[in-house]
Amino acid sequence: MSITLPSTVSEDQLHLEVARFYARHLQLLDDGDVDEWAATCTDDCAFLLPGMTEPVRGRQALAAAVRKVREELAAKGERQRHLHVMTTVTPREDGTFRARSYGLVISTQRGGDPRLHRMCVCEDVLVRTADGWQVQSRRVTRDDQ
Amino acid sequence: MSITLPSTVSEDQLHLEVARFYARHLQLLDDGDVDEWAATCTDDCAFLLPGMTEPVRGRQALAAAVRKVREELAAKGERQRHLHVMTTVTPREDGTFRARSYGLVISTQRGGDPRLHRMCVCEDVLVRTADGWQVQSRRVTRDDQ
Amino acid sequence: MSITLPSTVSEDQLHLEVARFYARHLQLLDDGDVDEWAATCTDDCAFLLPGMTEPVRGRQALAAAVRKVREELAAKGERQRHLHVMTTVTPREDGTFRARSYGLVISTQRGGDPRLHRMCVCEDVLVRTADGWQVQSRRVTRDDQ
Repeated sequence: MSITLPSTVSEDQLHLEVARFYARHLQLLDDGDVDEWAATCTDDCAFLLPGMTEPVRGRQALAAAVRKVREELAAKGERQRHLHVMTTVTPREDGTFRARSYGLVISTQRGGDPRLHRMCVCEDVLVRTADGWQVQSRRVTRDDQ
Repeated sequence: MSITLPSTVSEDQLHLEVARFYARHLQLLDDGDVDEWAATCTDDCAFLLPGMTEPVRGRQALAAAVRKVREELAAKGERQRHLHVMTTVTPREDGTFRARSYGLVISTQRGGDPRLHRMCVCEDVLVRTADGWQVQSRRVTRDDQ
Repeated sequence: MSITLPSTVSEDQLHLEVARFYARHLQLLDDGDVDEWAATCTDDCAFLLPGMTEPVRGRQALAAAVRKVREELAAKGERQRHLHVMTTVTPREDGTFRARSYGLVISTQRGGDPRLHRMCVCEDVLVRTADGWQVQSRRVTRDDQ
């Protein structure tokens, strides 16, 4: 279990750290560095993604789900890029942070044109630990649903 | 009338504050928090948007215009997300700031695919007040025009 | 030849400086301020772009290549915007920095809809000099290739 740091930093500093965190977190995801990506989530992390009625719980289950999606994309000759933009970060009373972002998924077929696949809102609870930032929970909603 | 702060901060700090400001400003707009959004503009704010020959002037007129657009979008079952990216911030001699961004509008119909609706350049004059940043004027130009 | 600054700054500070640098670098490119844009690259800068087997080398050759592309776009009535997002910055042992970004190119025909033209990964080696940041080398790969 990681130790949560005291949140004595400014909101500007938090914003900057979270922007850096998401850049790394999403590059790891899109590059298929699944174990390193999973380490950016807490052990007991819960993801509620579109179409789910129950969240995926736990780092191992998340990693398995990501591996499955990547195999499906590879079989289709498709690449995905995830972008988090317009992120707001709000400290919560329990020492965690709420980060709300516009989440774009851009999908490109080998030999095809890139397309904006999904426009989502991504609401995370993040923890700031001595080992860096981690996602504790994620809830994604799609603009088309 | 808000008090303008002396601009003794670094340009890096300004860039960070403006990025945070736009994230909140645009989330409020897209979420339909119109009164809170209007409070991120000055009382006498002027917006010159594509298709207009005269700017919309004043916080109340702006709020009314935003409410009208939101009703039209709701009637069509459509959601819009506004993104400001690649923002540059330049101090002006009068203590205000020029912020120039690429402004993207992403539009999603319920049940449909998201699409890049507009690609714009957004040129703002911003003021940094004790109550936070505010838009004093905005001029948006569309890349297709 | 510019003098490289010692990299005694924090990684947060580096991230912020690089984000500001790219905003200016890409606005200069898209606005056609070719000489100012070229000054954001080192004298001996090398760009390896999609479709090339050999990089374009040197600031003058780069400026000429950019001017040619701009003439072709103007002849077609087309505007391009380049976006770098989700940037990670990593210090290298030689005092330079590796910056890896998702690079989007958005293209708009006069009178047409904007479209996502390219989805790329842009890997730069950047130098931090007394005159500001500069690109020393760039390697761009397209997601569709």
